[in-house]
Amino acid sequence: MRVFGIDCGTECTGYGVVESDDSAREPRLISLGLGGIVLPKKEALPQRLALIYAQLTSLLLQHQPDVVAIEEVFYSVNAKSALKLGQVRGVALLAAANLALPVAEYAPLKIKSTVVGYGLAQKEQVQFMVARLLRLETTPEPADAADALAIAICHIHTAQTLSLQMGQRR
Amino acid sequence: MRVFGIDCGTECTGYGVVESDDSAREPRLISLGLGGIVLPKKEALPQRLALIYAQLTSLLLQHQPDVVAIEEVFYSVNAKSALKLGQVRGVALLAAANLALPVAEYAPLKIKSTVVGYGLAQKEQVQFMVARLLRLETTPEPADAADALAIAICHIHTAQTLSLQMGQRR
Repeated sequence: MRVFGIDCGTECTGYGVVESDDSAREPRLISLGLGGIVLPKKEALPQRLALIYAQLTSLLLQHQPDVVAIEEVFYSVNAKSALKLGQVRGVALLAAANLALPVAEYAPLKIKSTVVGYGLAQKEQVQFMVARLLRLETTPEPADAADALAIAICHIHTAQTLSLQMGQRR
Repeated sequence: MRVFGIDCGTECTGYGVVESDDSAREPRLISLGLGGIVLPKKEALPQRLALIYAQLTSLLLQHQPDVVAIEEVFYSVNAKSALKLGQVRGVALLAAANLALPVAEYAPLKIKSTVVGYGLAQKEQVQFMVARLLRLETTPEPADAADALAIAICHIHTAQTLSLQMGQRR
C-alpha cells in the first residue's frame, strides 16, 4: 500500500509518500519522497491556490498512491486562520478527488498517538519517531513534511490494525 | 464588461452573471444568468468540492466573463464554519485562476452599500434592489444567487467609479 500524506498549511504544505512493504516477515515502511510546497507571498491568493493544486496534482500523478491521507482540522485556531487553512485544504482535497483517489482523514490526536504512542506529543517527538520508523538518517525537513509522513504512517498502521481485526473475526 | 459573481456557501454556492451595456446613453445592467450549485449532503467532502469545481469551471467557460467577483469573508463566523467555507472558497478561487480570470474581492459592507446604499441592509433589501437594477420580474432565487448578482453589480459600479475618477484626473 502506498499512501500520500498531506499536511496543509497557509505558508507551506508538506507532503510525504510512504509505502508498506509486506513481503518481509515484518512489515517495513519506506519513504518514497517528501517535501514542502512553499507559497510565494507575492502572488495573489487565487494564483497561490493554483500553484498548490498544480504541484499536488503533479506529485500525485508521479507517485501514484493508493490513497491520500490528510489531517482532520482542529478548531482551536481562530476563524481567520481557519478560513485561510480551509482554502488550501479545499484545493488539496480537490486534487485528490479529481484524480479519483480515496481520501482518509485523521485527527491530530490519533496521528500522534499512532506514531509516537502519545496523543499530546511535541513536534520534535513526531519528527524523531517518523525518522526512526522510516529509517531516515536525518530528521525530515521541512517540519510540515515530517507531519505529512506521520499522517501517511498513521493511515498504514490503522489499515493494518483494521485488517488484523477483520482477520480475527473470520 | 461581463462579471461573474460568486457567493460561496457550504450548502449552496450562488452565482450570477451581469453585463454592463454602455452603448445606450445610460449604462444598463443585464443579467445573463443566475443559479445555485447545491451540494449533495450524501457525498463525501472531496467529491462535493470536485462537483463545485467542475460546475463553476463549466459555467465560467459558458459565460466567458472578463472578471470574477467574490465576497471577502467576514470573520464573525466561528472557526469550524470558517474552515468549511474556506474549503469551498479555495476551490472557487482555483476555478477562476485555472482559467486565468482575474478575481476581485469585495467586503459585504461595500457590496451592500453599493447596491442598496446602506452597508447594514437586510437580505431582502439586497434582493429587492438587485431585481430592480437588473429589471427582473421576480426576486432572484435562490437567495445565494441574488447575493452573487449583488457582488457582480458591486464590481461594475466600482469599476465605473474608478474609471470616472481616472477620467477626471486627466
